[in-house]
Amino acid sequence: MIVGILGGGQLARMLALAGYPLGLDFVILDPSPDACAAQVAKQIVAEYDDSRALEDLARRCDLATFDFENVPAQAARFLAERVPVYPSPAALEAAQDRLGEKSLFKELAIPTPHFAPVDSREILEAAVAAIGLPAVLKTRRFGYDGKGQALLRRPEDLALAWEALGGVPLILEGFVPFEREVSCLALGGQDGAILTYPLVENRHREGILRLSTAPYDSGDLAVQAQDHVQKLLTRLDYVGLLAVEFFVRDGRLIANEMAPRVHNSGHWTIEGAETSQFENHLRAVTGLPLGSTKARGHSAMVNFIGQLPDRRDFLAVAGSHFHDYGKSSRPGRKVGHGTLRADDPDTLAVALRTVTGLGLDS
Amino acid sequence: MIVGILGGGQLARMLALAGYPLGLDFVILDPSPDACAAQVAKQIVAEYDDSRALEDLARRCDLATFDFENVPAQAARFLAERVPVYPSPAALEAAQDRLGEKSLFKELAIPTPHFAPVDSREILEAAVAAIGLPAVLKTRRFGYDGKGQALLRRPEDLALAWEALGGVPLILEGFVPFEREVSCLALGGQDGAILTYPLVENRHREGILRLSTAPYDSGDLAVQAQDHVQKLLTRLDYVGLLAVEFFVRDGRLIANEMAPRVHNSGHWTIEGAETSQFENHLRAVTGLPLGSTKARGHSAMVNFIGQLPDRRDFLAVAGSHFHDYGKSSRPGRKVGHGTLRADDPDTLAVALRTVTGLGLDS
Repeated sequence: MIVGILGGGQLARMLALAGYPLGLDFVILDPSPDACAAQVAKQIVAEYDDSRALEDLARRCDLATFDFENVPAQAARFLAERVPVYPSPAALEAAQDRLGEKSLFKELAIPTPHFAPVDSREILEAAVAAIGLPAVLKTRRFGYDGKGQALLRRPEDLALAWEALGGVPLILEGFVPFEREVSCLALGGQDGAILTYPLVENRHREGILRLSTAPYDSGDLAVQAQDHVQKLLTRLDYVGLLAVEFFVRDGRLIANEMAPRVHNSGHWTIEGAETSQFENHLRAVTGLPLGSTKARGHSAMVNFIGQLPDRRDFLAVAGSHFHDYGKSSRPGRKVGHGTLRADDPDTLAVALRTVTGLGLDS
Repeated sequence: MIVGILGGGQLARMLALAGYPLGLDFVILDPSPDACAAQVAKQIVAEYDDSRALEDLARRCDLATFDFENVPAQAARFLAERVPVYPSPAALEAAQDRLGEKSLFKELAIPTPHFAPVDSREILEAAVAAIGLPAVLKTRRFGYDGKGQALLRRPEDLALAWEALGGVPLILEGFVPFEREVSCLALGGQDGAILTYPLVENRHREGILRLSTAPYDSGDLAVQAQDHVQKLLTRLDYVGLLAVEFFVRDGRLIANEMAPRVHNSGHWTIEGAETSQFENHLRAVTGLPLGSTKARGHSAMVNFIGQLPDRRDFLAVAGSHFHDYGKSSRPGRKVGHGTLRADDPDTLAVALRTVTGLGLDS
């Protein structure tokens, strides 16, 4: 069975590496001629809205999925008229627009920050008056790694933020003074089965995920998360992996955003769970039984941003695993990640301190 | 760094899949145009003794290793004059000839069955007289999966065995009425580091490995194995993974044979050990620190012989992992394997009974 993937970055690369043992083969579509998944899969080099390229992809695959959620919805629909596409274009669209996403959370009674659409400077003033400060002004679409966002602390911040972001549809969200950020990786099978991985705690800096640790277990957060993601998967008839990011405040989860694909905060599952998010996403979209999502011990995933650390130093740390995406170095670019796995949290903490000493935070 | 691999079967395929995350790339040399590793690596289609192809491989890789030990020693030496080759051609040669191999075991005081070289019918008679019956007559070279062997139970078996095998250099080995078969997967690093995986228990039928379970722990067998493999790795200046198969009799290990490469009885390490044999072989040959060889729970590896089972049925079993080698079906051919992993032996036994019920033993 041949899986088509829209987008050929590290997620597509890790999907392919997880999929060959299942007997799958892969064709990616990506406009970049040096897409890093092309080292391990066939590539069609074309824009996502190139209908001839999409026709070609449809001819060459049995079903399609995504490494990248900002594919034009029309392209996803065009493809879906030709081959099965998971998750569905409708589910993809639900996650592409922050306004639609937040509205869906609200409709499903999933706690989420206050929000309001912003289409003009006047509406921004009114939204700030209603929601209060601090608040975050965001582009409704195409945001990632903290791009397309401005934090508004004081009324005088509005002018600069509007200047930076105005002109495209925006959303204003109330700022949540959260204690921590967690994510829930959930899986929907073609038979309606729903599974979740243990919660992951995430640390961001400058809008980019730096560190994920799992399992994160506190109070009834896992139960809350399961309840929330179950509603989302069911509503969206979701097939594949859905990642939902939450703020934690006063023992309560507040949904921040979701991604309709395998997720950076799930990379630890390669070594740290019985079945990785990559394998399980492929099992879901190809109609195979889902694998166990149980954690195996305790894991910490460190993103390599900008450049890779010395692999000798990193691999000398006990329980370490290295993931080079085959990309060239560039400031702010995710070029790889490393995972530390241990049977108990104390051993993991020791390994993590050693890794922190390697000065990865460049 | 680009790794050249002589041989492009499932071992090369699993090496490549384990190596991309380390930042490695792969070129295989294999005479078969449908070598199954070619799905995930570049291939040079040529015979192993084709010096132009070997030149080409040497130009295209930074170092070379093996998926297949029956490469002509001369080809390995030719390559080693151009790029580093691990394990060394000398180590490869030591494992290619059963007589040399057994002589090495004996020299290093590693218990091994009685043996004698057999070059004529007369010498065979003399060897049988010296060693006694039952005994096993084997070709000295190119044997695998029980091919090139004949069991001699009674004096009248000699004629047929000689007719089947005579004409090439042979070895007669005393038959060991063993209680079980185990293997030890050992690793030598470029810095002289030596690591071993937990012992594996192996079940063969018709000369082909069917089932491996690990860890196998009984008495001081692990200590004996470590002692034996340490002597072998040291003597051979061995870099990479060496698999040594032993018979167990009366609490004592008796060395049967060794393979200078990753090994079928080590496939369980992909899911069942902290670092897989494939990753660790690559870490060794590329000079990276070796990864932990500790088992994670309990594993059973089932070979898929001739054809694959229904992957839906297999993946419905708890803790199951599927490995399709991308080969066509053929009687007696290893076309894939499945691994069952569990946190405790009882859960593993239940899963294994379910899998046995799938009728894999075709």
